[in-house]
Amino acid sequence: MVVTCRREVATRGQGDAHDITDLVSDAVGESKCAAGIATVFVVGSTATVTTIEFEPGAVADLNRSLELIAPREADYRHHLRWGDDNGSSHVRAALVGPSLTIPIADGKLILGTWQQVALVELDTRPRKREIVIQVVGE
Amino acid sequence: MVVTCRREVATRGQGDAHDITDLVSDAVGESKCAAGIATVFVVGSTATVTTIEFEPGAVADLNRSLELIAPREADYRHHLRWGDDNGSSHVRAALVGPSLTIPIADGKLILGTWQQVALVELDTRPRKREIVIQVVGE
Amino acid sequence: MVVTCRREVATRGQGDAHDITDLVSDAVGESKCAAGIATVFVVGSTATVTTIEFEPGAVADLNRSLELIAPREADYRHHLRWGDDNGSSHVRAALVGPSLTIPIADGKLILGTWQQVALVELDTRPRKREIVIQVVGE
Repeated sequence: MVVTCRREVATRGQGDAHDITDLVSDAVGESKCAAGIATVFVVGSTATVTTIEFEPGAVADLNRSLELIAPREADYRHHLRWGDDNGSSHVRAALVGPSLTIPIADGKLILGTWQQVALVELDTRPRKREIVIQVVGE
Repeated sequence: MVVTCRREVATRGQGDAHDITDLVSDAVGESKCAAGIATVFVVGSTATVTTIEFEPGAVADLNRSLELIAPREADYRHHLRWGDDNGSSHVRAALVGPSLTIPIADGKLILGTWQQVALVELDTRPRKREIVIQVVGE
Repeated sequence: MVVTCRREVATRGQGDAHDITDLVSDAVGESKCAAGIATVFVVGSTATVTTIEFEPGAVADLNRSLELIAPREADYRHHLRWGDDNGSSHVRAALVGPSLTIPIADGKLILGTWQQVALVELDTRPRKREIVIQVVGE
């Protein structure tokens, strides 16, 4: 069986993180999948999905390292193309990646107690993000 | 249903990126899969697959950050082992990862308008890369 | 078909890497899956799974870049919350990610000759890690 769930999340710009564990978990519940995998995919090239202990400190620490890897205020060749200011967003998103695949057993996601699914906005402006939860299993 | 497609892409060495969206999309079309997932996997430990807005500026920006994280000309313990010069390639590839999983609905990949699938060569020399597109669905 | 295998790996703290290729490969063999995908997922938010040429030099090089991105001895906002000392672990794990999906054909993982599956401990203390190998296919 394959079940596709699409959800929208409104974000407030670079570094804004959302705990989407319940959103993913509810989609798995609604799918009635007992065993399989859930692929969580963010549509677009300036956001990412990963797992983290979702508390404000860890999220701030993650953003600090992303700023180190691809500083927001640096010069980017991407800016020359469109007059955009989100070169740092594209680099960060390509490095961390848009997708995550989580096992499902007994109808539930297998995750650690302190392991949440996070959508991290990397774009420099607020966005309406489309998240696809694709459940494949039986 | 499971369909395995193997494709080859010739690359020109570190930082050479290829837009493989059509290649992946064609494999999904040929599979006749209506709903499911496509896992894109690069065989080998010195290349990566990710998504990015595929234009030369953003690709150059990504390569600059990879150079910051694992500079090509630094000393690497890996070089001592084989006399290789591609320590930076191994580090970059392990960080970004070899695989990507994309949802399929209505027989098509779900991707953003500016979100392309990219193979990025990280090795220091030209390579012939094997890409596996594994389609699982119905 | 969906087969879930759970395995435990004891680790010795930050930077300790384990070649789990055989562990994953054996799980695929036991599942009797001929074609499909294996998702390798580490439960918890301070470890990662990736592929690398598994030799001590490349592993040390990877750890050096992780130290550059998120230095162990820096100040972390996460430390203020719990009195923990593993802020660097959370950042590194969120960046590299907890999951990896590998194609299966002819009953075997498709991997390069020098491409091994590695569990890398990122926490600052020894841990008993649960690895889930979720096989989906036919």
